[in-house]
Amino acid sequence: MKLVESVPNFSEGRRENVVRAIVAEAEKYDGIWVLDWSMDADHNRSVVTLIGTPDKIVDALFDMVKKASELIDLRHHEGEHPRMGATDVIPFVPVMNTTMEECIELSKKLGKRIGEELKIPVYLYERSATKPERENLANIRKGEFEGFFEKIKDPNWKPDFGPDEVHPTAGVVAVGAREYLIAYNVNLATNDLSVAKKIAKAVRHISGGFRYVKAIGLELKEKGIVQVSMNLTNYKKSPIFRVFETIKREAARYGVNVLESEIIGMVPLQAVLDSFMWYLQVNDFDINRVIEQKVLNIFAKDLEGK
Amino acid sequence: MKLVESVPNFSEGRRENVVRAIVAEAEKYDGIWVLDWSMDADHNRSVVTLIGTPDKIVDALFDMVKKASELIDLRHHEGEHPRMGATDVIPFVPVMNTTMEECIELSKKLGKRIGEELKIPVYLYERSATKPERENLANIRKGEFEGFFEKIKDPNWKPDFGPDEVHPTAGVVAVGAREYLIAYNVNLATNDLSVAKKIAKAVRHISGGFRYVKAIGLELKEKGIVQVSMNLTNYKKSPIFRVFETIKREAARYGVNVLESEIIGMVPLQAVLDSFMWYLQVNDFDINRVIEQKVLNIFAKDLEGK
Repeated sequence: MKLVESVPNFSEGRRENVVRAIVAEAEKYDGIWVLDWSMDADHNRSVVTLIGTPDKIVDALFDMVKKASELIDLRHHEGEHPRMGATDVIPFVPVMNTTMEECIELSKKLGKRIGEELKIPVYLYERSATKPERENLANIRKGEFEGFFEKIKDPNWKPDFGPDEVHPTAGVVAVGAREYLIAYNVNLATNDLSVAKKIAKAVRHISGGFRYVKAIGLELKEKGIVQVSMNLTNYKKSPIFRVFETIKREAARYGVNVLESEIIGMVPLQAVLDSFMWYLQVNDFDINRVIEQKVLNIFAKDLEGK
Repeated sequence: MKLVESVPNFSEGRRENVVRAIVAEAEKYDGIWVLDWSMDADHNRSVVTLIGTPDKIVDALFDMVKKASELIDLRHHEGEHPRMGATDVIPFVPVMNTTMEECIELSKKLGKRIGEELKIPVYLYERSATKPERENLANIRKGEFEGFFEKIKDPNWKPDFGPDEVHPTAGVVAVGAREYLIAYNVNLATNDLSVAKKIAKAVRHISGGFRYVKAIGLELKEKGIVQVSMNLTNYKKSPIFRVFETIKREAARYGVNVLESEIIGMVPLQAVLDSFMWYLQVNDFDINRVIEQKVLNIFAKDLEGK
């Protein structure tokens, strides 16, 4: 069974009935499973995590975007998190037996439908981007909903799909394919923030570190320690174990020990397995030799047959 | 969904139609999934790996034992591997949402049926054993099929279930619950067998090492290296990472490096996760935060609903 993950973000974090109505649009489909959803009142934003088969996921996400455009009016939206659309961003992530290329295709198919049928301008981002300056979501979102009425007139910011005008209440939306993102923190046995900042600088891409690592140094005041807080945007190419070992070595340079690691949220089995294999020096081990993965394959086949 | 694994061994490794007929007895059940089966002509023995729900697995295994007793005649059986029954041994292993206690219960339920309905003497072994000397399978099997006609007369070897007489063609069978067994080898960058032997001695239970480790030193002649070849009989209590790190340190004592690790066959996700967490110093991570495990839980629920 092919499975794709998507983590659509909606600009509603206060009215639970609205979020539930959007989630219900996905849940009505056979072949779509909602793994998790959460809302944040301060950000006034909600995040839904779902997986689905490629033949269903575009329809399900389209229905969610349609429902969000009916129930959310960005003219009356306030919240801490920057946003540009009722549905703000829709990433497609390859998780089981699917490739990045398939996810790029799905993002374009969904973008086309949103643009044509809902008249909401669509920007393809990350791996689906049609221009380098559209790869970074923050770049697209700059100016937010309010600023987009001017921004969209710039020929550089002509949408990839849909009208050349911002939807009056639903704004614009970013759709794209990306790798699984792992939120990963390393806590240090010191309260010296400068050490965490120096290590963050050493490992993050922007200042010469690993290509798929974003990092900052933070103070955890209540714990009396500091943290290197990271996003690993491609765990296959900048793997957890290498980042961890580098941090450990850098910390030792300052006479500091690593206290612990934290994985935030969920993690793909392959990322766990890659570290297992590296540390134990296992050269030859396929994911299908993990019992749970094997059982999952069998169950997926059973479900397809029913 | 509760799932139990079983790995029954049958004394037939040459006639494929016989093994297929036994496997078919399991496959006919909804709620039983055959993960793998293999036969070995030299050992004249086959091993089937299946998982199933507790309410089905006893019936399925009983039908397999019945079929084996109809098709295999131990009076004409030759092979390298020691054996005492047409069905030689049936372990129950807790894999998903099941406890050791439930597996012990299942083993007794199956043993009782085999004894009463098929008139085959049953010995409970490992965690199901009723006497300490029956915990070790090799102890029970001593004397093999041919020797059991005498052995069974000894009051110490009165079967746990079934008649006090060996079944004339199907022999006797061992049934029991045990932890998942991981076959794990570490290859050393030397051709000095004495180093592998010294390390095996250091880590194995019998000579003072880890309680749930069996180990021997071997030569891998075609590779020109030596190996510490192990069975980890309880990966929760004598975990892979601790065994590996101890071997690495012991090898260093002799100026030898570890070349690689090998995991033979399948491994439970929890064993992989335990090493991942130990090496990366992750203190707080639940198996259900691995995406594939979460999807497996959802699929299991879907299958139960259908």
